[in-house]
Amino acid sequence: MASPAVDFARNNQQRFLNELKDLLRIPSVSTLEEHKADVQKAAEFVANDLRRIGMENVEVIPTKGHPLLYADWLHAPGKPTVLCYAHYDVQPPDPLDEWKTPPFDPTERNNNIYARGAVDDKGQLWMEVKALESLMKSGNGKLPINVKVIFEGEEEVGGESITEYVRKQKAKLKADFALVCDTELFAPNLPTLCVGLRGLVYTEIEAVGAMIDLHSGVYGGAAPNPFFALIEIISKLKDSKGKVLIPGFYKGVKAPSKDELKAWKRLPFNEEHYRKTEVGSKVLTGEPGYSVLYRTWARPTLEVHGMPGGFTAAGAKTVIPAKATAKVSMRLVPNQDPDDILKRYTAFVKKLTPKGIETKIKVHSKGPASVVGTDNPYIKAATEALRDTFKKETVFIRSGGSIPIVNDFYQALKIPSVMMGFGLPDDNLHAPNEKFHIPNFHHGIETICLFFEKLGGK
Amino acid sequence: MASPAVDFARNNQQRFLNELKDLLRIPSVSTLEEHKADVQKAAEFVANDLRRIGMENVEVIPTKGHPLLYADWLHAPGKPTVLCYAHYDVQPPDPLDEWKTPPFDPTERNNNIYARGAVDDKGQLWMEVKALESLMKSGNGKLPINVKVIFEGEEEVGGESITEYVRKQKAKLKADFALVCDTELFAPNLPTLCVGLRGLVYTEIEAVGAMIDLHSGVYGGAAPNPFFALIEIISKLKDSKGKVLIPGFYKGVKAPSKDELKAWKRLPFNEEHYRKTEVGSKVLTGEPGYSVLYRTWARPTLEVHGMPGGFTAAGAKTVIPAKATAKVSMRLVPNQDPDDILKRYTAFVKKLTPKGIETKIKVHSKGPASVVGTDNPYIKAATEALRDTFKKETVFIRSGGSIPIVNDFYQALKIPSVMMGFGLPDDNLHAPNEKFHIPNFHHGIETICLFFEKLGGK
Repeated sequence: MASPAVDFARNNQQRFLNELKDLLRIPSVSTLEEHKADVQKAAEFVANDLRRIGMENVEVIPTKGHPLLYADWLHAPGKPTVLCYAHYDVQPPDPLDEWKTPPFDPTERNNNIYARGAVDDKGQLWMEVKALESLMKSGNGKLPINVKVIFEGEEEVGGESITEYVRKQKAKLKADFALVCDTELFAPNLPTLCVGLRGLVYTEIEAVGAMIDLHSGVYGGAAPNPFFALIEIISKLKDSKGKVLIPGFYKGVKAPSKDELKAWKRLPFNEEHYRKTEVGSKVLTGEPGYSVLYRTWARPTLEVHGMPGGFTAAGAKTVIPAKATAKVSMRLVPNQDPDDILKRYTAFVKKLTPKGIETKIKVHSKGPASVVGTDNPYIKAATEALRDTFKKETVFIRSGGSIPIVNDFYQALKIPSVMMGFGLPDDNLHAPNEKFHIPNFHHGIETICLFFEKLGGK
Repeated sequence: MASPAVDFARNNQQRFLNELKDLLRIPSVSTLEEHKADVQKAAEFVANDLRRIGMENVEVIPTKGHPLLYADWLHAPGKPTVLCYAHYDVQPPDPLDEWKTPPFDPTERNNNIYARGAVDDKGQLWMEVKALESLMKSGNGKLPINVKVIFEGEEEVGGESITEYVRKQKAKLKADFALVCDTELFAPNLPTLCVGLRGLVYTEIEAVGAMIDLHSGVYGGAAPNPFFALIEIISKLKDSKGKVLIPGFYKGVKAPSKDELKAWKRLPFNEEHYRKTEVGSKVLTGEPGYSVLYRTWARPTLEVHGMPGGFTAAGAKTVIPAKATAKVSMRLVPNQDPDDILKRYTAFVKKLTPKGIETKIKVHSKGPASVVGTDNPYIKAATEALRDTFKKETVFIRSGGSIPIVNDFYQALKIPSVMMGFGLPDDNLHAPNEKFHIPNFHHGIETICLFFEKLGGK
């Protein structure tokens, strides 16, 4: 089980960390126009290192927004091809006065490195680059598998450019699987692989009553109020316990495997602690008979996000609005078909629409759940690599949300993603004093080395 | 029945109209800062004429906003005292390109005078002033009753200053009744008196679930959504037919008299025409068994005006908001007590609030319905005066809305208002090509002369 790549990585830990600090010093805040040049600079920094370590066809690709970065090394015939993903843009550092040390002056404390982007996602991007270097240097300029790299600089602002690029460059990006390093461990020192994401159908219901806004004094009692129509409709879409009432909504739902369910029960998760510290509500809601993890990972839901229309400013205005809208989304699980669900939802909304009101449904987005089997060969190899590093069995989890890039890879390239992340739940993502636990940075590099070596048949 | 005042008015029709045109040329748009001096100028214009015709104690009263105008003549001992109300500010004239002739260049066409403020409310204000002049000049410098005048320049922007003034100057403004000239006839040539207004309780329900906004992917299925709480609550406040379900809500409701109901049936009102041209909806809503006029004038209602909270911009955001709100108001009729209704409403909302959600109710405004009996002596005299002018019986109507000044007079001064207006339903209030039918201007002056003469015992 000796790995020359892991040996190389261990001998170069200090240099790898110093390089990461250099990358963290570039304030590549993608949402701020004044940092546009810095995002470009971060891309060039990474591109230069990829060239230096022997990656080929390194390209900084201009887009309408921030650049993409591509590289490859494709000289392992008969071996699998991985598409490595990460991002080099970061969130703004505000509020600045809550940082103990400056966000772009990376500082070590208690075996952590503190800086904006430390864990999200420059530290995890650099794990991938340094794993490639370790494999290349210890392998006489060769990698055990074929590697394509696609890094982006717009993850924190919606990632439009990469979505467009993935859809247009299917052949160029074609691979057997993707490695996505942008998530976290379920708990410290607990090797974790996320193998499922819920899908999403996001809609807007527009209800129209009168032709113009009317005075509620003069017309109240005669003019239809579209808010009441929406309220009547939505009150019948889901019961008070959280069960969705759209006919056939649960028809395709595939339950998680018994092994998954068993594993979830063993996770260090306390519902009361979660309620108090994460949600901060008096009670948790949701379908009876399912645990919180089951409900948020593997049960479909329906939520209202906002109800624009009428008078929303401070104070009082006595208007019966002509039009009111509701933003309603559904989270989907395997094997619910988004088109089928949308059809059932639309028909039900139409059926519930009161006489005299016209409803229209606009679809903002639509994507299925994605789940990788735990017996998938790439997941299996990743599991073994994690076990070798952490000396512990990997836990398989899911996530209730969707990760857009995983969805893009799944839908455009038809490939699964291995979501292997080394962040910790208390790493302060998007918040002041973001950090990355230094041992996890090195664990990450070593795990990726072992993972690719296993897939290369070593 | 010969009236020297009416004779005087008839002999001075052209001059009265010319003076009105001068007043209409002043662009006293109260909502636009650049017209502040014009509102002042309009006040001075009216004040000068009141002084000229012999009114006393004429005062242009500065306020935080636009000036108020006070005048009186109190030398008719033993006779009633009237408080005359109107306003000299106007709406902005936009959109300018839809005016056939310029809004501040009054023009006669088809026996109408076209200008911004022609009917709302400078024309009707000038009716009052010219009636006072006619009475004074034909009565040897004496009026048949005691008269106080309070005119404002902020009606189109909320009328805060007059409300404050009325509350503070109860003794100064004390009168037996108010004459409010700011409304319209139900139909052309149909003398109309509005004898009832609905009351209003306007609230905002705030519902709180989690402590912060949460991602609906990660937390959907576990975190309570305050929008569902509001939807659940509001769906139970009113049934789909329009019946309010708050226990005891209809307890105090006093039905209109049989005479009123009979009179309403005779009004030229076509529900289908109203639905198509005024509301523009597919159907009208409201409690079965009541006519549209009954429902909007004399039945209480409950409406939702807006539901701020969560994500209301264009597009999609997957948020479970920590907080959502709903602006909910109730129109009240005689003899519903606003405090009692608010108590019942609050208790019912609390009862309907789902477990785990906290609701708070904020009250924006609260006022009872006001109805004057058709046998009230001032209403009776007004009725007779209208009949003498129009040679037709007066119809008594109500209005579903509230007229804030009538409410102020009712609550602060404890006096009823005679709402005697001479506008027409097609006078384009607040719209381009606002007009006042010139015969109605003169009818108004003559009616007020006759009204005051009757009350003076002539």
